[in-house]
Amino acid sequence: MRYIIGIDIGGTNLVVGTVAEDGSEVLGLVSEPTQSERGADTVLDRIVSLARASQQAASGRDIVGVGIGAPGPLDTKRGVVLLTPNLGWTNMPLRDRLASALGLRATLDNDANCAILGEWWRGAARGARHVVGLTVGTGIGGGIVLDGRIYHGASDVAGEIGHMTIDSTGRRCKCGNYGCLEAYASGPAIAARAVEGIEAGVETMLPGYVNGDLSLVTAQVVYEAAHDGDAFALEVVRDTAQFLGAGVANILNIFNPDVVVICGGVTLAGDRLFVPLRSEVNRRAFKPAVQACRIVPGELPGTAGVVGAVAAFRQQMEPSG
Amino acid sequence: MRYIIGIDIGGTNLVVGTVAEDGSEVLGLVSEPTQSERGADTVLDRIVSLARASQQAASGRDIVGVGIGAPGPLDTKRGVVLLTPNLGWTNMPLRDRLASALGLRATLDNDANCAILGEWWRGAARGARHVVGLTVGTGIGGGIVLDGRIYHGASDVAGEIGHMTIDSTGRRCKCGNYGCLEAYASGPAIAARAVEGIEAGVETMLPGYVNGDLSLVTAQVVYEAAHDGDAFALEVVRDTAQFLGAGVANILNIFNPDVVVICGGVTLAGDRLFVPLRSEVNRRAFKPAVQACRIVPGELPGTAGVVGAVAAFRQQMEPSG
Repeated sequence: MRYIIGIDIGGTNLVVGTVAEDGSEVLGLVSEPTQSERGADTVLDRIVSLARASQQAASGRDIVGVGIGAPGPLDTKRGVVLLTPNLGWTNMPLRDRLASALGLRATLDNDANCAILGEWWRGAARGARHVVGLTVGTGIGGGIVLDGRIYHGASDVAGEIGHMTIDSTGRRCKCGNYGCLEAYASGPAIAARAVEGIEAGVETMLPGYVNGDLSLVTAQVVYEAAHDGDAFALEVVRDTAQFLGAGVANILNIFNPDVVVICGGVTLAGDRLFVPLRSEVNRRAFKPAVQACRIVPGELPGTAGVVGAVAAFRQQMEPSG
Repeated sequence: MRYIIGIDIGGTNLVVGTVAEDGSEVLGLVSEPTQSERGADTVLDRIVSLARASQQAASGRDIVGVGIGAPGPLDTKRGVVLLTPNLGWTNMPLRDRLASALGLRATLDNDANCAILGEWWRGAARGARHVVGLTVGTGIGGGIVLDGRIYHGASDVAGEIGHMTIDSTGRRCKCGNYGCLEAYASGPAIAARAVEGIEAGVETMLPGYVNGDLSLVTAQVVYEAAHDGDAFALEVVRDTAQFLGAGVANILNIFNPDVVVICGGVTLAGDRLFVPLRSEVNRRAFKPAVQACRIVPGELPGTAGVVGAVAAFRQQMEPSG
């Protein structure tokens, strides 16, 4: 069995693992905060150290390459990160720099694409033909896997599903557009909607979870309070399900996929999110598209990006694989 | 040179032509109102008559098959129209009935898919790799052509781009959903917005175009008045551009296509529509996606469906073509 190192570069965490080429095993899974404030070169050095640590943990295995997932926009063919404000990278030849530092062949793809490809390869969307996925966290990323391959579009920027407008005159999004799904249903947007409610005087136990410091309210705190039965927190989760439901219904009407997979912190809300989400989609989307599609949480929290970066490596290196 | 009969079955018109297999020539183009009120079998008989008339006009040519485009939902593999309320068809084995009536091999695909494939093969999207198109008429249909092939999805219902929600709490759509693009920018929606304005007392010459009978206001009348400089009609066209712009921006962020092609009556509005449409897309979509994409009117009004049904025949019969 050959092994491939998977690297998942996120704005918050770096995750690296050494994955069997059939995806059956992840060895030497290591993770660290990204700490992008320490500068672009430092981040790169730390990725190399993590990769070496993972390699070490998998010592004795035949390691043949490195698959990298990074935030975009990218030029996947040239292996270059064009611009990543969070990481301070501009026209960074990430693929070749990591390949040369590690002495291995490497490939580069978008982080959300990798996560969804990972779920298709070894996770919740195994065996599906057409998969569209969302990674709901600090932002909302998207990935499109058609006939088992990542769909990149004309210039590698396809799949920005979080920046689909669901309310054309709605909330301003950080991208400059109005009413993007991300402006309603990302982690920070969920927290912001909760804080707006608290400030408007709704009855809720939420402030007690953060010692009254509303700047500490996160989406995860909202899920905790919902889990404990707080009515307002439950309402915030249900609203989130409705926003996501409008977006997922659009995905069904446009792509008619076999599976929609939803990854990221939002899956912590569990059935409190997925039950109303599915019923919102039922209400909105065309019946034959609803009948054809499973809407499921990701099954590889923490490793989808690493596993998918390895799957992307295999596809780029062996186009028929 | 071999020839293929293309059949475009619309709710309003039936169009048939005999097309050279390289798409260079359309012979015997014939068209009639659909007159679906005369019953499902009558429509079928009239399609056969039209096809024979087209065949006759192309006599002496080597005609090898029939490509059919019809409203969905369909089962393209079995060649069956599942349900078309407008035409009164339920589980109609359209492909095989026409094949047997005409003594030719036949294929069936969705009418909007065919129109967009036609624009890719011989029209405004020639040479593009990834094309997403809208057909704006009585409804808003959509077609997705990726790597030069129609994308069908898991159960043949992909591409319902007109039923993408752009305002999740907005106008009720005939499909049951809220805020679909079709509810704002289809021909009847454009006319309805104009009539709403007239009834609210705006200053406009529009009523003069229909002898004061507002039930006669159509999108085409709005374009005529806009062409004549009527300020309110121009505003209705600009609003249409903004609605379509929100939808097309979503298409760019999701698909990152080379070309978005817009077909149907709405293209009669010309630059009055396309100039503000493009600037709305610029304002909303990601820059790299905007830079990669041309947004153009269809170049095959009246024949895109026929030409595309023939292209779909070729693709189904010769999968490598």
